Amino acid sequence: MKDINKITFIGSGNVATHLAIALKEAGKEIVRIYSRTIENAKALAGKVDAEFTNNTEDIAGEADIYIVAVSDDALLQTAEKLNFNDSLVVHTSGSAQMDILKGCSENYGVFYPLQTFSKSRKVDFNKIPLCIEANNPGSREQLKNLALSLTDKLYFVNSEKRRTLHLAAVFACNFPNFMYSVAQKILRKNELDFDILKPLIKETAEKVQQISPADAQTGPAKRGDDKIMKLHIEMLKDYPEFQELYRIISEGIREMEF
Amino acid sequence: MKDINKITFIGSGNVATHLAIALKEAGKEIVRIYSRTIENAKALAGKVDAEFTNNTEDIAGEADIYIVAVSDDALLQTAEKLNFNDSLVVHTSGSAQMDILKGCSENYGVFYPLQTFSKSRKVDFNKIPLCIEANNPGSREQLKNLALSLTDKLYFVNSEKRRTLHLAAVFACNFPNFMYSVAQKILRKNELDFDILKPLIKETAEKVQQISPADAQTGPAKRGDDKIMKLHIEMLKDYPEFQELYRIISEGIREMEF
Repeated sequence: MKDINKITFIGSGNVATHLAIALKEAGKEIVRIYSRTIENAKALAGKVDAEFTNNTEDIAGEADIYIVAVSDDALLQTAEKLNFNDSLVVHTSGSAQMDILKGCSENYGVFYPLQTFSKSRKVDFNKIPLCIEANNPGSREQLKNLALSLTDKLYFVNSEKRRTLHLAAVFACNFPNFMYSVAQKILRKNELDFDILKPLIKETAEKVQQISPADAQTGPAKRGDDKIMKLHIEMLKDYPEFQELYRIISEGIREMEF
Repeated sequence: MKDINKITFIGSGNVATHLAIALKEAGKEIVRIYSRTIENAKALAGKVDAEFTNNTEDIAGEADIYIVAVSDDALLQTAEKLNFNDSLVVHTSGSAQMDILKGCSENYGVFYPLQTFSKSRKVDFNKIPLCIEANNPGSREQLKNLALSLTDKLYFVNSEKRRTLHLAAVFACNFPNFMYSVAQKILRKNELDFDILKPLIKETAEKVQQISPADAQTGPAKRGDDKIMKLHIEMLKDYPEFQELYRIISEGIREMEF
């Protein structure tokens, strides 16, 4: 199986953008960017010296791989429109089955970077786990080599395990980030600066790199300090939705069998 | 006001341990460790070349400051037993009022490190915000200098703001850590390794060092991807308590005015 050198992207969002830039920097050629919105296709194409289009009929051709990096909502619809004969095609979704691409090519798979991407923040791909899956050994080998051009954190994960990973990632990333937002909101109302919490947030994430979350758990709920929990719930009286959150999570901490 | 050099600790838990070691390393003399449990007093005393006792009558004497680092639950009871005339006495609690120490001395205050401490993990005090409060300018100056021997992240915070900080810290630290535990539990059941989430956890905390949690928020709830959220709730069918958590937090993310 030949190595992948020429890459076309379908999609121009956060994942497409970060991945295209990283692959370009890893020496790959980005052939073309497709987006329904021509301005978005153009913007990303400009960053990676690629052609761009908003016409699905102009996507196929030249590339060794077609990377479909669109939202899960759009994925099925997009896949139905694509046909690449036997060229390798992958999606980047955490939750979508690999087989969603069955009709697009004889060779298909998944290339899922387990990370959170925001436009304004560059990420270092060699710290990102890449989860790959393919419908045959040759494609798997190609995807493996492509992944290794970016990171050594490479995982072979089937569709079922991948969606479990995605669910766990929601708890490990999206939900903690929401907790940071709540903290910020509480501080702001009391004219306190979010900056003061930053070292704590960092240390909380650093701790579980070395010790298990169970051993790292601290705080009033873990200690069973009812007086403080009652005080905190009182203090949240202007935020009934945060009171509920506080109660439920504190109960979870107390009852968790770690 | 003279600088603080000699320090006695009341308490031998995580905060006392980390703080005593850090102050010792900063060149201070740790005079004595008091704990109700003599073995605990002895263990910490051994680490910082101090004397130790489990007799409240042997606490007073010699020290420039008495640091009461006990759980909030024990604090009131402990404070009632202590009298240091005019020697400076502080507690290290996030939520207890400064005045809880009124009866212990003419000079009292608070020395609150805003951080999460676990026995097995050493922390770097110069990255820890220290929140101080005192009942008079002289004591405040002494506490300021003591804090500066450990960190330049020094904050003057009154009791009310401090307890707001503590509440926000629960959301910024204890609750995210619980979310990590849930993620670990989900992965373990599916024979997946928690290690694969570690870069994501780290990046999630790193992101908000630079951009606001609102801008950093990603995931199905933020995108309003109902299909994925429904799938995730189905996947959690063996964990009704996590289903509830998932629903409530996702709703929070959707409705949050960031």
